[in-house]
Amino acid sequence: MYLGIDKGGTRHTFILADAEGEVLHRVQHETDRHAGAQAELESLRQEVVSLLAKASASGSPVKAIGISFGGPVDIRTGRTLLSHHVPGWEGVPLRDLFEEWFGTPTVLDNDANVGALGEWKFGAGAGCCDMVYVNVGTGIGGGVIANGQLVRGERNLAGEIGHMTIDPKGPVCTCGRTGCLESFASGLSIARRYRERFGSGEPEDLSSRAIFEKAGADDPNAKSLITETADYLARGLGAAVSLLNPELVVLGGGLSETGDLLFKPLNELLAKYILPQAVGVRVVPALLGYEAGVRGAVALAMGA
Amino acid sequence: MYLGIDKGGTRHTFILADAEGEVLHRVQHETDRHAGAQAELESLRQEVVSLLAKASASGSPVKAIGISFGGPVDIRTGRTLLSHHVPGWEGVPLRDLFEEWFGTPTVLDNDANVGALGEWKFGAGAGCCDMVYVNVGTGIGGGVIANGQLVRGERNLAGEIGHMTIDPKGPVCTCGRTGCLESFASGLSIARRYRERFGSGEPEDLSSRAIFEKAGADDPNAKSLITETADYLARGLGAAVSLLNPELVVLGGGLSETGDLLFKPLNELLAKYILPQAVGVRVVPALLGYEAGVRGAVALAMGA
Repeated sequence: MYLGIDKGGTRHTFILADAEGEVLHRVQHETDRHAGAQAELESLRQEVVSLLAKASASGSPVKAIGISFGGPVDIRTGRTLLSHHVPGWEGVPLRDLFEEWFGTPTVLDNDANVGALGEWKFGAGAGCCDMVYVNVGTGIGGGVIANGQLVRGERNLAGEIGHMTIDPKGPVCTCGRTGCLESFASGLSIARRYRERFGSGEPEDLSSRAIFEKAGADDPNAKSLITETADYLARGLGAAVSLLNPELVVLGGGLSETGDLLFKPLNELLAKYILPQAVGVRVVPALLGYEAGVRGAVALAMGA
Repeated sequence: MYLGIDKGGTRHTFILADAEGEVLHRVQHETDRHAGAQAELESLRQEVVSLLAKASASGSPVKAIGISFGGPVDIRTGRTLLSHHVPGWEGVPLRDLFEEWFGTPTVLDNDANVGALGEWKFGAGAGCCDMVYVNVGTGIGGGVIANGQLVRGERNLAGEIGHMTIDPKGPVCTCGRTGCLESFASGLSIARRYRERFGSGEPEDLSSRAIFEKAGADDPNAKSLITETADYLARGLGAAVSLLNPELVVLGGGLSETGDLLFKPLNELLAKYILPQAVGVRVVPALLGYEAGVRGAVALAMGA
């Protein structure tokens, strides 16, 4: 059996999976993001003890543990570098702690890479050899599968499609530079662009989800903003397609739930940004939603 | 022994190499590009017959043949799709012809991929696991090495860094679209930009090489154009670095011979277009020059 863990910002999800990665048992905890790393570690430890015991009792002990972590990790040392959500995760030797506590081989990676693995092994990219995964949520993350393997690069920074420069004169990005894809097309950026353009009377904290709902209800302003977002995304994905010639681009996150409103113009506009010979690549919605992380963690444990 | 062949537009180069890929024997023919594919095929056949005999006579027969072809090829069928230089190469089953004629396993790929292999195995990228190769000549081609493997993608179109869109409002590209990196930074584009900006009195056929020579001789116009070109290249390479996090970018072709004039601003400007955590990636000149193709063909034969 394999144990997959998604350590997100507001919840921890655990899956026991069989040798094919099929889900046998699933547990989820809401977490208190103010409790800090130490409290989170202890909560993870307790749940893992209980799940390992459950697996052993079933006669099929856990062979390996995979962890999706919501922040950058150092693959070589198995340490977390920081959490995007919870203080105190700087330099925690999570892999070694797990192996010491449980005597079970443990693999760790950031949530973008693990999400890509999840969609590739069990979701929209199943059976694919070359795939690009993009998650458009609050920010934009991604992962690259090439030659049937996850591409991590030299410092585990591959897949940072959100920080490709789309227009150097564009808005300031969360990373401090300007004109990144994320500064145009992330959930936060979509909400900002909507407020700037149509926003008199809209609440300060208007969410991208509210805009997607407006678009779904045929609001012309919201719809035009989604089409414009599709063009920005097409530029970023076009660069990825030119470089990697994947058969599939899998798009997840809140934006992907807008369905045809997004995917129809996105697939059309993509042709503007790639060689005619590469036209035919499809951009499709992710299938696993928030489960991509925990399913990908199982794939990680399985040695993907 | 291995046989590597670079079938370029104006010359054919052949290398016999030992088990480590070191060059034992080298032959080069200038070719008549108007003679057509049939004449070229016959000329290739004759030279290969002679080299195979030479290898056998030395007691170390050729185990495999690798071919770098100057145009797109279908990897699965081993056919050439067209030559960029010579008419008649549409759909020639080059791999099967070679295997039939010589009874020797033959591998075929386009010159951008094979050049990447050459620089990776025997040149500037030796020992690297993740590398991006860019060749700035008349056009801009490239190749991607990730996880210690050449990335070909679904239709052998990976590495088309020259056709990433830098600015949708940019010049018309050779591919028919607008604003590709190639439309700003290829040899042809550099010459065009120079003529447009400073060119009264310059000959219609001013070459990019002449501009590089002016820059080398401290001509301020030519130097400013090289710096501007470095910025366009930095944008393209920045997107590749964001996506793949390579340890090295290897830049070949005529432009790379301008040395520090190009590489100094290019390495500085690249930092504008990548995450701070990825800064440290180096853009370095290719080492093999025109030999990248034939050395890469040896790597191809060796099973790279």
